[in-house]
Amino acid sequence: MPSPRDTAATETLSFVELTELLQRIFLRHGTSPAVAQVLAENCASAERDGSHSHGIFRIKGYLASLGAGWVDGQAVPHVEDVGAAFVRVDAGGGFAQPALHAARALVVEKARHAGVAILAIRNSHHFAALWPDVEPFAQEGLVALSVVNSMTCVVPHGAQRPLFGTNPIAFAAPRAEGPPIVFDMATSAIAHGDVQIAAREGRALAPGMGVDGAGQPTQDPKAVLDGGALLTFGGYKGSALSMMVELLSAALTGGHFSFEFDMSTKPGAQTPWTGQLIIVIDPDKGSGQSFAQRSEELVRQMHGVGQERMPADRRYRQRQKSLAEGIVLSATDLAHLQALAAR
Amino acid sequence: MPSPRDTAATETLSFVELTELLQRIFLRHGTSPAVAQVLAENCASAERDGSHSHGIFRIKGYLASLGAGWVDGQAVPHVEDVGAAFVRVDAGGGFAQPALHAARALVVEKARHAGVAILAIRNSHHFAALWPDVEPFAQEGLVALSVVNSMTCVVPHGAQRPLFGTNPIAFAAPRAEGPPIVFDMATSAIAHGDVQIAAREGRALAPGMGVDGAGQPTQDPKAVLDGGALLTFGGYKGSALSMMVELLSAALTGGHFSFEFDMSTKPGAQTPWTGQLIIVIDPDKGSGQSFAQRSEELVRQMHGVGQERMPADRRYRQRQKSLAEGIVLSATDLAHLQALAAR
Repeated sequence: MPSPRDTAATETLSFVELTELLQRIFLRHGTSPAVAQVLAENCASAERDGSHSHGIFRIKGYLASLGAGWVDGQAVPHVEDVGAAFVRVDAGGGFAQPALHAARALVVEKARHAGVAILAIRNSHHFAALWPDVEPFAQEGLVALSVVNSMTCVVPHGAQRPLFGTNPIAFAAPRAEGPPIVFDMATSAIAHGDVQIAAREGRALAPGMGVDGAGQPTQDPKAVLDGGALLTFGGYKGSALSMMVELLSAALTGGHFSFEFDMSTKPGAQTPWTGQLIIVIDPDKGSGQSFAQRSEELVRQMHGVGQERMPADRRYRQRQKSLAEGIVLSATDLAHLQALAAR
Repeated sequence: MPSPRDTAATETLSFVELTELLQRIFLRHGTSPAVAQVLAENCASAERDGSHSHGIFRIKGYLASLGAGWVDGQAVPHVEDVGAAFVRVDAGGGFAQPALHAARALVVEKARHAGVAILAIRNSHHFAALWPDVEPFAQEGLVALSVVNSMTCVVPHGAQRPLFGTNPIAFAAPRAEGPPIVFDMATSAIAHGDVQIAAREGRALAPGMGVDGAGQPTQDPKAVLDGGALLTFGGYKGSALSMMVELLSAALTGGHFSFEFDMSTKPGAQTPWTGQLIIVIDPDKGSGQSFAQRSEELVRQMHGVGQERMPADRRYRQRQKSLAEGIVLSATDLAHLQALAAR
C-alpha cells in the first residue's frame, strides 16, 4: 500500500468515516464486532494524528495475522480482579487493545481509590502504537505508564545476536492548559515500522540503527529486515530499559518473552504474541497541589529554556488539522481499503 | 579527597568498620543517630560495591550541606497512609533515605496486599546512588522502580539552556538463581559524580556528554562543571525520560522541580532539595508463574546471545571481594575520615 505522498490523487475522509471503513474491514476478516470497533478506532486515530507507521499501513499485517489463524479475532478477554490495585487480563490469544478496553473501567476505579493500579495483560497481540493506550488516562487526570514487548529483532548491548523486541515505553500525564504530555518511544534505535517505511520508500537509515544478517552495521533497511536486527537506543542504557520492558511485559504478566513464540508455522503471521503492562496513578494523591498545574509549569519552563516542541505536539497539530479538514488518503489506498471492506 | 589509586599506601576496613566510621562522622556533623545510621550504611554500601562516585567521595558534600544549614540532619520524616496502595512522606527538609526507611515496611505491606504500591517522598535531599533504594525490594521478591530529580544541569533535547537534573531511573527485580537484576542510570549522558571525578583526575570526557558555559560542546569536565551543562543520553528519548522523572519525582510527590530551589544563599550547600518516587510491585500477582524463574530465563537467554555482563555484575563482584577481603581505602582518605569523625 503506497503512502499518500506517492500519488497526486487523494481523497478526504472524516475520522468517523475512516473508523467505520476500517471497522467493516476487520469484521469482514474475522473479528468480532467488539474487536473490530476497538482496532478500527485505534488505527484510525494513528492515521488521523499522522502516525503513519501505525495507521492504515498496518492493515495488511493485521489481516495477514488474522488470515493465518495466528491471532484470534473473536477472543473475549478474561478480566481478573486480583488485588486492591491489580487487575490482570488473559486476552485469549486476541489483540491487546480489546483486553485493555475490557479492563479499563476497573483499573481507573482502582487507581482513583488506591492511588495506583496495575493492569497486566497476557496472551495478547499488540500491533499498534502505544500512545493511544496511555493518552486517554491522562485526559481523565491520571498518569499512565505502559510497556509492551514485541518480537526478537533487537541486539542487547554487548551481545552478538538479537533477543529483545523493539519494546516501547509510553507515558502520559495531564496538564492544566493543554493536551496531555505524552511520549511513546521504542527502546530500539528506530521503530520497526519506520524501518519498513524506509525500505518501502527506498531511503537509507541513519548510522547506528541496525545490523545485517552477518551482524555487521548497515544503513540498508532491507538488510535489517532480511535477517538483520536493530540496535538499542542510547547504548547500554536503552538496552537495560529494553530488558526491563521484557520483565514487566512478559515475566510479570505471564505473557511470552519476545523470543518465546514461533510464528513460522502460520504463514502470514506478523503480530507479536506477548504481554503488556500499564501502571495508572492518581497524581493528586501525592501532594496537596494540583498535578496538572505543576506539569503545566514544567512545560512553561521547558519552553523557556528553548525546547519549542513537546513530544506529542506534531501529533496534536496533525489531529487538529485532520479533525478540521478531514484525513487525507491517496486514492489508491482508499480504493484498496474499500475493496478489503467489500470482500 | 584523592581516590585510592592516587597513592600506594592503602588501608583495609570491614564493611561494618567503614559503616561505623561514617556513622560517627555524620553524628559529629549534626545528624540524628537514626539519620547517621541510614546514611552511613548507604554510603558504605556504595564504597563496598565500587560505586566510587557515590561512596566516601560524597562525604565532603554531605557535610558541606549539613554545615550550611541547607539540609536538616535531625529531620523526622512524616509518613502518611493515603490509600490502599499509596504512601507519601514529607522528609521535613532532611535526606530522602531516612524517609524511605521510615515508610518502607508500610509500602511493602501495601504492595503485597494490593499488588502494587507507591511511595511518594517530598521535601527531601537525595545525594546518593539510586540502586541501594531499589535492590532491597528485589531481595524480598518484589519489583521496584524509582526515579529522583536532582538539580538543573541538563539541557533538554532541542533547548539552549539547562533545566533538568541528571534525573536517574533505577530498577530492581528478583531472579531465581542469582542476585537481583538491578540497573541505575542517569538520564543525562553522564552522571554528575563521574564528571566531578574526571575533573579531579584530569581526564577528558567522551564527546556528546556536555556543553560549556556558552552552550558549546566540550570534553573538558571542568568547563562542564564551571557554568556548563550536561546533555541527555540517547537524544530526544533520554530527554523525554528526564522530563518524566521531573513529573513523577516532583509534580507528583509535591517536591521541587530541579530548577525550583536556590541554594546560593547557603554557601557550601550541594544537595538537591526535590522529591522521589518509588513504585513497588508484587510480581507474583501478575501470573500463575514464578516471576523469579521467568526472569532467570531471560538472563539465561541474554547470556545465550552473547551479553556476558548484567548491569549490576561489576558491583556484585566488587561486593563479594570487599566482603571477603575488606574495603580498600587510601591511607590519606582514611586519615581524613578519621579526622572528620574525631572533630
